[in-house]
Amino acid sequence: MAPQYAPSLRSRLPLVAFLLETIFILLFFFFVKIEQHESDSKLFIRSYAEFQDIHVMIFMGFGFLATFLVRYGFSGSGFNMLLAAMAIQWAVLMNGFLLPQRHHRRGIHISMKSVIEAELCAASALVAMGAVHGKTNPVQLLLMALVEVTGFVINQWILRTLLSADPLYSIMMLHIFGALFGVMVSWVLHREGINPKHEKEKIDRSTGLFAMFGTLFLWMFWPSFNSALVPQRLEKELKLTVIYGTYLSLAVSVVMAMSVSMLTSSTGKMNMVHIQSSALSGGVAISVAMTAVHEPWIAMTIGFCAALLSALGFQYMKDHMLFAFECHDTCGVLNMHAIPGILGWFAHLFLRLASSESTIAVRFAVYHICVFLITVCMSLVMGTATGLFLKWSFWRPQQDRKCFDDQAFWEFPNLVVRV
Amino acid sequence: MAPQYAPSLRSRLPLVAFLLETIFILLFFFFVKIEQHESDSKLFIRSYAEFQDIHVMIFMGFGFLATFLVRYGFSGSGFNMLLAAMAIQWAVLMNGFLLPQRHHRRGIHISMKSVIEAELCAASALVAMGAVHGKTNPVQLLLMALVEVTGFVINQWILRTLLSADPLYSIMMLHIFGALFGVMVSWVLHREGINPKHEKEKIDRSTGLFAMFGTLFLWMFWPSFNSALVPQRLEKELKLTVIYGTYLSLAVSVVMAMSVSMLTSSTGKMNMVHIQSSALSGGVAISVAMTAVHEPWIAMTIGFCAALLSALGFQYMKDHMLFAFECHDTCGVLNMHAIPGILGWFAHLFLRLASSESTIAVRFAVYHICVFLITVCMSLVMGTATGLFLKWSFWRPQQDRKCFDDQAFWEFPNLVVRV
Amino acid sequence: MAPQYAPSLRSRLPLVAFLLETIFILLFFFFVKIEQHESDSKLFIRSYAEFQDIHVMIFMGFGFLATFLVRYGFSGSGFNMLLAAMAIQWAVLMNGFLLPQRHHRRGIHISMKSVIEAELCAASALVAMGAVHGKTNPVQLLLMALVEVTGFVINQWILRTLLSADPLYSIMMLHIFGALFGVMVSWVLHREGINPKHEKEKIDRSTGLFAMFGTLFLWMFWPSFNSALVPQRLEKELKLTVIYGTYLSLAVSVVMAMSVSMLTSSTGKMNMVHIQSSALSGGVAISVAMTAVHEPWIAMTIGFCAALLSALGFQYMKDHMLFAFECHDTCGVLNMHAIPGILGWFAHLFLRLASSESTIAVRFAVYHICVFLITVCMSLVMGTATGLFLKWSFWRPQQDRKCFDDQAFWEFPNLVVRV
Repeated sequence: MAPQYAPSLRSRLPLVAFLLETIFILLFFFFVKIEQHESDSKLFIRSYAEFQDIHVMIFMGFGFLATFLVRYGFSGSGFNMLLAAMAIQWAVLMNGFLLPQRHHRRGIHISMKSVIEAELCAASALVAMGAVHGKTNPVQLLLMALVEVTGFVINQWILRTLLSADPLYSIMMLHIFGALFGVMVSWVLHREGINPKHEKEKIDRSTGLFAMFGTLFLWMFWPSFNSALVPQRLEKELKLTVIYGTYLSLAVSVVMAMSVSMLTSSTGKMNMVHIQSSALSGGVAISVAMTAVHEPWIAMTIGFCAALLSALGFQYMKDHMLFAFECHDTCGVLNMHAIPGILGWFAHLFLRLASSESTIAVRFAVYHICVFLITVCMSLVMGTATGLFLKWSFWRPQQDRKCFDDQAFWEFPNLVVRV
Repeated sequence: MAPQYAPSLRSRLPLVAFLLETIFILLFFFFVKIEQHESDSKLFIRSYAEFQDIHVMIFMGFGFLATFLVRYGFSGSGFNMLLAAMAIQWAVLMNGFLLPQRHHRRGIHISMKSVIEAELCAASALVAMGAVHGKTNPVQLLLMALVEVTGFVINQWILRTLLSADPLYSIMMLHIFGALFGVMVSWVLHREGINPKHEKEKIDRSTGLFAMFGTLFLWMFWPSFNSALVPQRLEKELKLTVIYGTYLSLAVSVVMAMSVSMLTSSTGKMNMVHIQSSALSGGVAISVAMTAVHEPWIAMTIGFCAALLSALGFQYMKDHMLFAFECHDTCGVLNMHAIPGILGWFAHLFLRLASSESTIAVRFAVYHICVFLITVCMSLVMGTATGLFLKWSFWRPQQDRKCFDDQAFWEFPNLVVRV
Repeated sequence: MAPQYAPSLRSRLPLVAFLLETIFILLFFFFVKIEQHESDSKLFIRSYAEFQDIHVMIFMGFGFLATFLVRYGFSGSGFNMLLAAMAIQWAVLMNGFLLPQRHHRRGIHISMKSVIEAELCAASALVAMGAVHGKTNPVQLLLMALVEVTGFVINQWILRTLLSADPLYSIMMLHIFGALFGVMVSWVLHREGINPKHEKEKIDRSTGLFAMFGTLFLWMFWPSFNSALVPQRLEKELKLTVIYGTYLSLAVSVVMAMSVSMLTSSTGKMNMVHIQSSALSGGVAISVAMTAVHEPWIAMTIGFCAALLSALGFQYMKDHMLFAFECHDTCGVLNMHAIPGILGWFAHLFLRLASSESTIAVRFAVYHICVFLITVCMSLVMGTATGLFLKWSFWRPQQDRKCFDDQAFWEFPNLVVRV
């Protein structure tokens, strides 16, 4: 049998990317201006620092978190950069059209706030990408990212318009939305060839450390991620609570992730991939619950439970998902983002119910449940639709043998030069 | 002979960690609140930036500095994260109980200052860990870290109470305290099997670069590390002097570390591990001397001498320590933290004596020597005691053959899945 | 034939480094003070954050960008650190002597501005180093860096004195100056042994990811790099425009770099090294054009064209340069810095001409062309002279076989200890 090469994307990716970039530049030409009157210089300094923390999380954190696969490091970090760069441009436009900031006369105005929101929308696309890593080519990833951002912004628009939801709360559904979206895409795109476990789906010493980098950058800057959109003037106390709460929750998560990983292993050894993901679960859970958390110990308890659930999920649920539902989740986004997110949602509900009168509590519960159901439905429906669209063979997915392998997309000069 | 597996920690680490985390959460529940009245927003922005620099140094810097051992990268970075996360929680409590910030009515109030102090205490535990890396298991490391933090906070309390020492000065003894503590633990725990040099105690191309990361993060952010606790309002000039002094001192250290490493090598080649450690010695020396350094050239001279001493120590002293005293110091913390710290202490003494009248000078010298002796005694005594406690075989240390090896603690999926 | 070792630098590098450091400390003793009256605390906070972003770019970004060569990672990151540390000290002195900040009575005053300018001068030396990586030893690199900084500061002095050029504009010629300087040095130092392509001049999975780190740190913090020297009070709107413009330009660059790399490859695969370099071209182009860019779409268009040109240059021009002109450019600084820089220069000219009256336009064009020609001439002449000086065999360059190899300069302990 002749060696099978992965199908060339030469006629697909450059065309799609050129086209999209040209459209983006035209849309920016017609609609986008730079906001020149950022209200206050002190606020700008603060926002710029927060923006950079998030910028590092998006490009360095998510990028290197996905480098753990032994032969997929170039794709993991490279495609992350491609997708995030595109998703940000698209999110600036979508946010500007659907969720205009203030009563600007016309057009979209770029400000620190709009850029931070665009980066958070890109984050939801990167979460979704985690589920399909290695089984899709960059054209599919690019299209998925753009649809995901569109869906996520529409979801926010629905929540804000129909339910008058708080902008902060609606954007923090990004973990749940992104994870479920990605899992549905992965479910539709499932193929037998990566069952039960693909031979290249493992880590080695180097890739484990590269992924550790990504984890640490996400872990260290998560307080900024959660607190960046908390308004600085009116809710200064909330901002402090979010920063310290996220910090403590993540500290507890790490300890619990390591303990549970060791406890559930038959040989008493820790699993690096599980730890890297579960250590972050505290940050996810707090991000959904944060407006209701007022005491450090509550944040720590949420981090405790999130890491417990997440680590147990990695150990026991990931393989069952593959066998029972034929759903393969490369980076385990279900256990890393969806389950801690849902835990945070429950914690939010519980804390509010515990601290309110009954009538207000009931009203809040209804609203809270509606937000959750709408988000879940939107993400499941749009994820399935996107999966079906990406299944089209026109997009030239790689063969099963070329899954989780950089060789399908990247030149390796060491194979062509004389040695 | 049947293959010997490293003893499983399944019945030790999770239990200890669960228990400690539960106690911590309970203590936080009873005693810890979030400080809501951070005095001034501008100060907060500044403090938050400094806090993040230090946060990066603790988790990224120290974590990756310890990844140079060829088969110990997962443990080096992973255990660093575990220890630091625990040590921070414990240090917040200990600092709050023994060194209350202001006259709060009751309880501990988390603020940027308390978090930064907690991270510095964690740093002293991580310095100590450097000496015992590879020869201890995570349970031992965890217990050592908690005892070290306790000892270091008590030492600060003694210095402040008995000698009315400046808080800034007493916390900057962290390098000397941590390094001597760690070396004593390592000395008590010494075993023949890692003598003269363990086969796995070496670097390779990748791990050398990973360690370079850690070094660079420490190196780049050290000005923030030294200046973070200098009060911003009253001593603004000191703060600037510390920032620029540390910066210049470190720049000189790098150049000297490389030169000395090449000069003392018989083949005229540089040693990556020595350079990585000695390049940081300027920052350590300045941190102890900083309140007495007022001119850039003095800072540069201190960096010059610190790197010289440190690099010579790595080349000639490290092996002698092992042979003469049976004391093995994995990361060379003695040459990296203790000796530059002592040099800084001497520089501080000398600079103050040179610029004061004789009566003040004598009084200062007595005080300065007392601070040093108390710190050294405390660290030696507590280090020895901790070493004896950790020698207890109940903690299941790994065998000699499993030293410096991730396989004792981490699952490697590439060994279990089909290839 | 006996194995040939690389010539030992034991009698060269330490001596040169000791001597230079001693001279530097003496010069600092006589001339340098710390500026104690930084005008305003708010400005200082902002400047310190920008300084740190640039600090990270210089040491982490440039350092790891050069680690892609499969056997040259230690040298790539280590020599970068050595050079940058020396270049900064020298640049502080040179800037202070030739380009004094304000009307200080006497001496050089270190402030955030002077340190940021010193780091940008060091950046131009590091750009030049990119062209000669692997073919020179550290003594040659050190001397080259000092001459380059001297030349660059003199060039700025000429531009400011003769043409009354804007300081911001003259310092942003660093990419063009550094790249042409480095290329000329490389041309003069060219040797047959690395023709057509050296066997060690390739990447592998790990080094590609290490270089990705460097790329990302440069890419993420480039907005700070471009905006740091824009005065904060008077030209706040320019500052915002530069930040958002650089951000968007870089986002477009990444997408275009990947697309062009795939389109021009015969197998439809992307080349990691090309992408890493071309992704940054948008930042370079904007840095030269920035004062004339007022709309986001213009910045995006510049990023689009810069990445297009840069990626095409990598694919088609780099090898031709080697064959036709016998000029080997290790990191492709010509395509990464010079060509995007020249594109930015053209864009600047065009945008100003399009928006000015004819008399002002002509005057601006003459001035703009003079700045360019002076910079190009200075860099070509000084680069050639430096190359001739470094060709002197007294500096003991390594043999052809030892090019691109860490073994010439670094101890590898894994080769000497027992296994």
